[in-house]
Amino acid sequence: MLNAEIIAIGSEMLTPFRLDTNSLWLTERLNAMGIDVKLKTIVGDDEARLEETIRDAMKRSEIVISTGGLGPTEDDITRKIFARALKRQLILEQSILDKLRARFARRNMPMPEINARQALVINGAQILENNNGTAPGMLITEGKCTVVLLPGPPREMKPIFDTLVMPVLKQRAGDMLIVRRCLNIFGLGESGVDELAAPIYLKYRNPSTTILFKDGQIELHLTAQSRSESEAGSLLDELAGQLDEVLGEYIFSRRNETLEEVVGELLKLRGYTLATAESCTGGLLAGRITDVPGSSEYFLEGVVSYSNEAKSDLLGVPKKLIKEHGAVSQQVAEAMAAGIRKRAGSTFGIGVTGIAGPGGGSEEKPVGLVYIALADDTQATARKLIFPGDRQFIRTLSVNAALDMLRRRIK
Amino acid sequence: MLNAEIIAIGSEMLTPFRLDTNSLWLTERLNAMGIDVKLKTIVGDDEARLEETIRDAMKRSEIVISTGGLGPTEDDITRKIFARALKRQLILEQSILDKLRARFARRNMPMPEINARQALVINGAQILENNNGTAPGMLITEGKCTVVLLPGPPREMKPIFDTLVMPVLKQRAGDMLIVRRCLNIFGLGESGVDELAAPIYLKYRNPSTTILFKDGQIELHLTAQSRSESEAGSLLDELAGQLDEVLGEYIFSRRNETLEEVVGELLKLRGYTLATAESCTGGLLAGRITDVPGSSEYFLEGVVSYSNEAKSDLLGVPKKLIKEHGAVSQQVAEAMAAGIRKRAGSTFGIGVTGIAGPGGGSEEKPVGLVYIALADDTQATARKLIFPGDRQFIRTLSVNAALDMLRRRIK
Repeated sequence: MLNAEIIAIGSEMLTPFRLDTNSLWLTERLNAMGIDVKLKTIVGDDEARLEETIRDAMKRSEIVISTGGLGPTEDDITRKIFARALKRQLILEQSILDKLRARFARRNMPMPEINARQALVINGAQILENNNGTAPGMLITEGKCTVVLLPGPPREMKPIFDTLVMPVLKQRAGDMLIVRRCLNIFGLGESGVDELAAPIYLKYRNPSTTILFKDGQIELHLTAQSRSESEAGSLLDELAGQLDEVLGEYIFSRRNETLEEVVGELLKLRGYTLATAESCTGGLLAGRITDVPGSSEYFLEGVVSYSNEAKSDLLGVPKKLIKEHGAVSQQVAEAMAAGIRKRAGSTFGIGVTGIAGPGGGSEEKPVGLVYIALADDTQATARKLIFPGDRQFIRTLSVNAALDMLRRRIK
Repeated sequence: MLNAEIIAIGSEMLTPFRLDTNSLWLTERLNAMGIDVKLKTIVGDDEARLEETIRDAMKRSEIVISTGGLGPTEDDITRKIFARALKRQLILEQSILDKLRARFARRNMPMPEINARQALVINGAQILENNNGTAPGMLITEGKCTVVLLPGPPREMKPIFDTLVMPVLKQRAGDMLIVRRCLNIFGLGESGVDELAAPIYLKYRNPSTTILFKDGQIELHLTAQSRSESEAGSLLDELAGQLDEVLGEYIFSRRNETLEEVVGELLKLRGYTLATAESCTGGLLAGRITDVPGSSEYFLEGVVSYSNEAKSDLLGVPKKLIKEHGAVSQQVAEAMAAGIRKRAGSTFGIGVTGIAGPGGGSEEKPVGLVYIALADDTQATARKLIFPGDRQFIRTLSVNAALDMLRRRIK
């Protein structure tokens, strides 16, 4: 299998504010061709470090891909340093310069002279035309190493890679494929999943398995290597089938869907409709549900009843109930769910009330206490949950739990 | 100024699914001590590449920090490879082993024998005790280089760094500080901001300025270096003051606050209250507003009126208005804003209706068309906006625009 390294070039990715995300997309594309990513480097406008990085990468890996640093300014050092590391000359390519001038002329602007720098190419490089920006990419073959220089902006980088780089790499990579599958799990913690899953997945080296925790959900990533798509599929089917036996009820998707997509699909399939009444989640539940295109088919309305008045006026929750049990109570959650269902005339109603913090908690009702109720035509039933973490995490977990409660109800 | 490199160790960060985010936090801490991060490497369980990375980093940089790879399993290679690169021995530290056994005993579990590996330390290393996990960190001085090994989980890594590593690095770094300030801007694009700001910030090398685009907003990051906090502050004040003159009305925060925090602060200060009626944003506006702790002081209620029935039943939007002008129209947006304001009895009401796509667009009313209305006690006025991008981006931009409209109204 071929090994690749990715070098992201740009000082902004060495600040506390920005990450290199291009490499995720590139990794997915490379993996799909059976190319493994072995190392990633993020470097700024430090010439010596970049040169050393390039030299090391070319010694170790068959494919070296850089992103960024192809702009027109002084600190865009990619061209210069790759040329130095490759011991090749930079040559002014008249055809690129003409295109650059034409590009500016079309916008009725004179080309700033610094942009001429973008017409410099490394001797012997294949020029990768950039239809979405001024900086062309380059592809260079040096001994056994394929070196690819791409611009940093994703909307420039991606089309160049797909149209001009992919065919070259595919030919080099031959016919080994990496195929991945993701099982999405809710309702168990990371160690809970591992306890059930490890005895199974540890028996396999191919596919390999990784467990990831993300926003209160667990993802099991299965990765198979094979020469054929169908063989990789069979390998994945076998492992996924065994995992299904022990984790079945917790797995909400086998195709890396979100909970809201799965719930939406179920509602649509059965012709059911939904309305929501939220307190502590403040609209996030409705927001997640309506993230799905076409959700207007099954989502009728939502109410964010932050004040007690809103709970009684909009949802018909009796004032007495709030007074007796408090706004955060099983009774009020159930009345909210039943109230919004009645108002909207929907198949289901969901009510969420809780204490997301940081303030508002007490010994009896601590921060993290959330009641989630689901109402249908016969009854409204609430679950009491206590979530860990900060305000944002408690709100996210509440939305997940509400969606999963509905998913299990419809299933 | 001292230079640092960060090495993130873990195969999961070489997949398409996960990034190294520890380095952002570490960079912020290092910058605050006047230490510059010059390079970041992400490497998996590849021993040769990790060893080379460590050697290169130690040659080039005064501080080398690694995260991850200190777990108990076979692919946790950090200890072994650092020892090899440093040409030092690994020694079993009995005191750590005892603590590990005690930790498991407290949970009534026998310690799996593989965990004993976590008691191996590099000869001469200072042990960095980990109160939140099983893997201790290490700090090693090798010539002019300070090498720090930290566990990967943020809740283990951060406290170790703050309590045990920071004091050592602070002493090395001396008294040069890096102080950053962030100006948050809405209502102009990246090039629009740069056109106004570049003639100013390009006059300064200290502070330096970076422009970042994020979720439809622009951030101007100003970075000053100085020996004193107050001198750095003056440098930042001078540049920020000049930027304020040209960008003033577009700057919504000078302290890296979110739009919802700024709006919340303004509402609270004036004793105003707010209610929202959303169609295409589906609850995201209410969700963003209630992200702010204490938002119940000014946010009364929200309605997600996805169906036309909800618009008329809940908000009193005349059915005739919807029929005449369509649900996505200036008239309906204004009626939604006025309707929710009246229902909630709030100072302000916001109404949002639009076409987030991907379906539902027409020539006359394309995907991206959004009307945002703001109602107060005298009138309701809508703005017509056309946003680019996909469903998610259109929804995010709509929420930003609604919040900014309210901010400008209160200001």
